[in-house]
Amino acid sequence: MKTKIIDAAAIRQLVRKVGRDRLMDEMIDRLTASFRNFDSAKTDVPARDGFKYSQPTVGLVEWMPSMNVGSNATIKVVGYHPRNPEDHGLPTIISTVSRYDTHTGHLVGLMDGTLLTALRTGAASAVASRMLASGDAATIGLIGCGAQAVTQLHALSRVFKIDRVLVYDIDRATMDSFYQRVSFIGLDSRQVRGATPSEIVSESDVTTTATSVEVGAGPVFDDVEPRPWLHVNAVGSDFPGKTEIPDSFLKRSFVCPEFLEQAINEGECQQLTSCEIGASLVEVLKAPDDFKQLKEQLTVFDSTGWAFEDQIAMDMILELAHDLNIGHSVAVECIESDPKNPYHSHTAES
Amino acid sequence: MKTKIIDAAAIRQLVRKVGRDRLMDEMIDRLTASFRNFDSAKTDVPARDGFKYSQPTVGLVEWMPSMNVGSNATIKVVGYHPRNPEDHGLPTIISTVSRYDTHTGHLVGLMDGTLLTALRTGAASAVASRMLASGDAATIGLIGCGAQAVTQLHALSRVFKIDRVLVYDIDRATMDSFYQRVSFIGLDSRQVRGATPSEIVSESDVTTTATSVEVGAGPVFDDVEPRPWLHVNAVGSDFPGKTEIPDSFLKRSFVCPEFLEQAINEGECQQLTSCEIGASLVEVLKAPDDFKQLKEQLTVFDSTGWAFEDQIAMDMILELAHDLNIGHSVAVECIESDPKNPYHSHTAES
Repeated sequence: MKTKIIDAAAIRQLVRKVGRDRLMDEMIDRLTASFRNFDSAKTDVPARDGFKYSQPTVGLVEWMPSMNVGSNATIKVVGYHPRNPEDHGLPTIISTVSRYDTHTGHLVGLMDGTLLTALRTGAASAVASRMLASGDAATIGLIGCGAQAVTQLHALSRVFKIDRVLVYDIDRATMDSFYQRVSFIGLDSRQVRGATPSEIVSESDVTTTATSVEVGAGPVFDDVEPRPWLHVNAVGSDFPGKTEIPDSFLKRSFVCPEFLEQAINEGECQQLTSCEIGASLVEVLKAPDDFKQLKEQLTVFDSTGWAFEDQIAMDMILELAHDLNIGHSVAVECIESDPKNPYHSHTAES
Repeated sequence: MKTKIIDAAAIRQLVRKVGRDRLMDEMIDRLTASFRNFDSAKTDVPARDGFKYSQPTVGLVEWMPSMNVGSNATIKVVGYHPRNPEDHGLPTIISTVSRYDTHTGHLVGLMDGTLLTALRTGAASAVASRMLASGDAATIGLIGCGAQAVTQLHALSRVFKIDRVLVYDIDRATMDSFYQRVSFIGLDSRQVRGATPSEIVSESDVTTTATSVEVGAGPVFDDVEPRPWLHVNAVGSDFPGKTEIPDSFLKRSFVCPEFLEQAINEGECQQLTSCEIGASLVEVLKAPDDFKQLKEQLTVFDSTGWAFEDQIAMDMILELAHDLNIGHSVAVECIESDPKNPYHSHTAES
């Protein structure tokens, strides 16, 4: 009864062996297929819950469960601490993911969820953008240039032929260091340049917002005149009261929630009534012909992070790690050879 | 940023070094002190939630979070699969516990929760029995002789001078093997004998029920005439619809819930109206003089398992492991030296 542990070193080894591009491509492909085939009878995803606090710092620790019915349960535990980069030199989002066998309750696997979260969040935006943005989107805007922006741009670069990237961050140093962090994508340094949020929204074909804007402090851009087909991936809104998009912009856009139950509590959909909310990404993927006209319209993908995606991402990492013989196995649970004797092997006595 | 992993081997090493008796004594002492000092402003314990299913087998995987406000969060994930011993040679209850730093979201520790659950469940019954049972309780009854019964009896043996143990299990082999599993407690084999549930309830001073009775199939004993001071630790009831105690017995007893919010959903308190439920164990411990007459009366401790106890138990194991230099540290989370670059160390590209 061992637990497969895929730690930081194993994740790095896996990324090196597979390559970032292939990993992202596979994540995009798997999410696309999983959304298309999504069956609520086979997957049980309750809305996440967690501890939200202002002491010792503003933050949250939340649990995101997802069950593959009849087979296994995945629980990602994710910390969101916007002061992490400044105060501790740590990412805002840190997480781990666990997998349980629902035949026995055994912890099958434990892995880093930090890179996995960045990967699947980027991939989900790419899937949504492929359905909702103009097919020849070439100008990408990024409002917020932190860790998530790296995988957002990487994922978009896998599905669009990018010509120009306009970036903005409230922190100048974060904005200035962005090109260096995404140089592996292969864009020329002249293709990536700073801009104001208004310039970004009016000039780009796809804009991703991924900020740590405080509760009540949004939106992160003014409702200026965009290209008529602008698609926005609203990634940062994932906390009650935290929103990034102007409500007037949302109200004239087709708003596609990633996971409706969560979006209305902590996403951009907080600003909308139920009749102002469009089809979910799963619904769009299941009937692409019904929604193809959206490519010509203003659209917003309301991404709050869906535990189902973590399940799919963990499947991918577990399979790759197995194929590449990466990670190590540890007997974590104290299982005695006599299941009715919790002290079985503890023969010595004080 | 390492995670302290206390795996099965480390737990066994720790139990060997500390000794079962000292470990149980310390668990009882820590729970007693923590209940006495319990402050709802310093501890946030939501009722647990989880996946309950009948496919691929009857079972559940649930998460039990508890926050030490301003410091850390503990999440135990526990599987309950009553067919485990027969079908897989595994314990019914398997679990792991994780600890998160609420300053950063970092996973500080991960450990086996299987032994920890058995220990703290036994210890909680001992704490309750010390408050609610007759001080010279000498005859202990056990209905259900599985893994939990071992630590139930062990814990009771640390707070009472036991003269006689009456045991019953629906499975004859489990009943017959019980003495061998608890022989370390030091009782003579003639002191531990099989009995019917009715004999147990009518002849014992303290009875613990710890069964896997199915939903709707309870109670596990008839409401025969008990000793007037009988105290029952109702341990097995921890699932909606699963109860072990006759409702008529409950209604003439002082019923003390371990954790009210959970007891009314999945404990014996499911059978009671709110005015039939007595003070909680925390309330009893905070005002012992107000409740001392209960030692002469029929009482039931409605134990459903409280995440706060897991937090205290994890504190204890982490401290002991630290003092004894047990366990190992692993960088699980993929934290890059540049917190804004999730790919920082992944320099090779496919």
